[in-house]
Amino acid sequence: MNAPETFPGFALGAWSAQQLATVEQALSRWVAPSDAPAGLGDAMRYAVLDGGKRLRPLLVMAACDAVGGNTQAALRAACAVELIHAYSLVHDDMPCMDNDVLRRGKPTVHVQFGEAQALLAGDALQALAFDLLTPDDGSVDAATQARLCRMLAKAAGYQGMAGGQAIDLASVGKPLDSKQLHEMHRLKTGALLQASVLMGAACGQVSPAAQEALGQYGAAVGLSFQVVDDILDVVADSATLGKTAGKDAAQDKPTFVSLMGLDASRAYAQQLLAQALASLDATGLGNTHALRALADMLVNRAH
Amino acid sequence: MNAPETFPGFALGAWSAQQLATVEQALSRWVAPSDAPAGLGDAMRYAVLDGGKRLRPLLVMAACDAVGGNTQAALRAACAVELIHAYSLVHDDMPCMDNDVLRRGKPTVHVQFGEAQALLAGDALQALAFDLLTPDDGSVDAATQARLCRMLAKAAGYQGMAGGQAIDLASVGKPLDSKQLHEMHRLKTGALLQASVLMGAACGQVSPAAQEALGQYGAAVGLSFQVVDDILDVVADSATLGKTAGKDAAQDKPTFVSLMGLDASRAYAQQLLAQALASLDATGLGNTHALRALADMLVNRAH
Repeated sequence: MNAPETFPGFALGAWSAQQLATVEQALSRWVAPSDAPAGLGDAMRYAVLDGGKRLRPLLVMAACDAVGGNTQAALRAACAVELIHAYSLVHDDMPCMDNDVLRRGKPTVHVQFGEAQALLAGDALQALAFDLLTPDDGSVDAATQARLCRMLAKAAGYQGMAGGQAIDLASVGKPLDSKQLHEMHRLKTGALLQASVLMGAACGQVSPAAQEALGQYGAAVGLSFQVVDDILDVVADSATLGKTAGKDAAQDKPTFVSLMGLDASRAYAQQLLAQALASLDATGLGNTHALRALADMLVNRAH
Repeated sequence: MNAPETFPGFALGAWSAQQLATVEQALSRWVAPSDAPAGLGDAMRYAVLDGGKRLRPLLVMAACDAVGGNTQAALRAACAVELIHAYSLVHDDMPCMDNDVLRRGKPTVHVQFGEAQALLAGDALQALAFDLLTPDDGSVDAATQARLCRMLAKAAGYQGMAGGQAIDLASVGKPLDSKQLHEMHRLKTGALLQASVLMGAACGQVSPAAQEALGQYGAAVGLSFQVVDDILDVVADSATLGKTAGKDAAQDKPTFVSLMGLDASRAYAQQLLAQALASLDATGLGNTHALRALADMLVNRAH
């Protein structure tokens, strides 16, 4: 970890702890209160609370910080993005998809609550994401609400995450070339990570040039996240990851490591980090400390 | 069918044909254009196009007519509501839920494309619904976009359709009393039907009193729709329905017919129709012909 050298005067740990406390409290309040019927609320809360690194919410809050945006809007965007991520994990873990039984060190939702309830909980979490983005209490102006819904819908749907999952599904056991692998991850994980950055920025005023540069930062960070995930799947153990390690290789899934090897993957991750930081320089924004430190943390993480 | 007597001067067939032509064309244009990857677009289009009575879109358009609202907004709302309905059918038909193989006279999506693709197609259709509601082309003002997203998210999520499905799931093989059965259907099918009416009205200006009355119309229509569905499940055959008849009884699901008998269910449906029409009178709106005729058609339909 080179964060102390790279980001003098900014303590990512303290900043993250503060943001996470706010995000966790908001998620706990907003995710399926007691009026959710027939165990659905339990499954939704299980899928979202008490686990997860909350990378996407942190990116939203950091981008909002960078533009001095509406923090109430950003908190809603942060939680909405996390709900989309959480629902995708619930559905992705189901037997007809990855058939995984362990997630964040706990039984997956369908193992704990049954497949039907897992399916419904994922569906309800996606709807709740858009519910969170459209409060009726005057805290977020209508133009911001509409913009955030638009960005999240595109990042989650066939042009984004769901589209990437479809490519993933079709690619098991098939060789993907570098271009195809990049395209899959640009959609599957990259779109939502990039949207996290852009949604945070959309909570404030941002010039077209700064938005473009933030989009490039988000793309580089999103891609680096996946490269590092592929590396960790090979080098880390299940206990450290909180999920089944070595799964990609066992399922014969194409990864950056299988395509380019471990050392080249590590170099590529560092190269993407450098790109992300250069993109932040190009935004012209002053307060990009948190975005810088998060990019560094994502690439140099151990789990 | 008593429509000719009850609604002199209004031809539901001609009105519906015109609306449906517009809606079908819009759905065909908006649902997963050719840039959807890896077969996902095919599954999405299969789930939505070339089938379905489009009751919800017709309710949206009729309510927009009643308030003289923005028809471009209403067309988007109509398609968005239909996408939510379509995705719910895809997921509901999956083996872990109802395990149905026939829908609208065709193999269900998971039979045709596999379970994983069906799961993804449903997820992507939900995201697309919110994408449709938030165009970036100036055709719908931001306040309307935000309002429509809010209404749809609540109607689709744990407080609406997904919540009702969770009750449904938990109720198989268990006796439900009348209150519980009403609550299940108020959420499972009623919420989205009612939202169709209210979203159509939200495309224009509507007084709080008229909105309240339209909500009551939507609730009565939504409930009557389910009562009639339960009746048809008993009295119609699969060919007429385009789906497996007698399924509820075979699965030991509680229905209005199993609870109150066939004759009382028929009388109840007519009573709900009368309530719906009385609610329309209470709106004070002039142009409620289409809403009136649709309520009548829903109750007196044969499939």
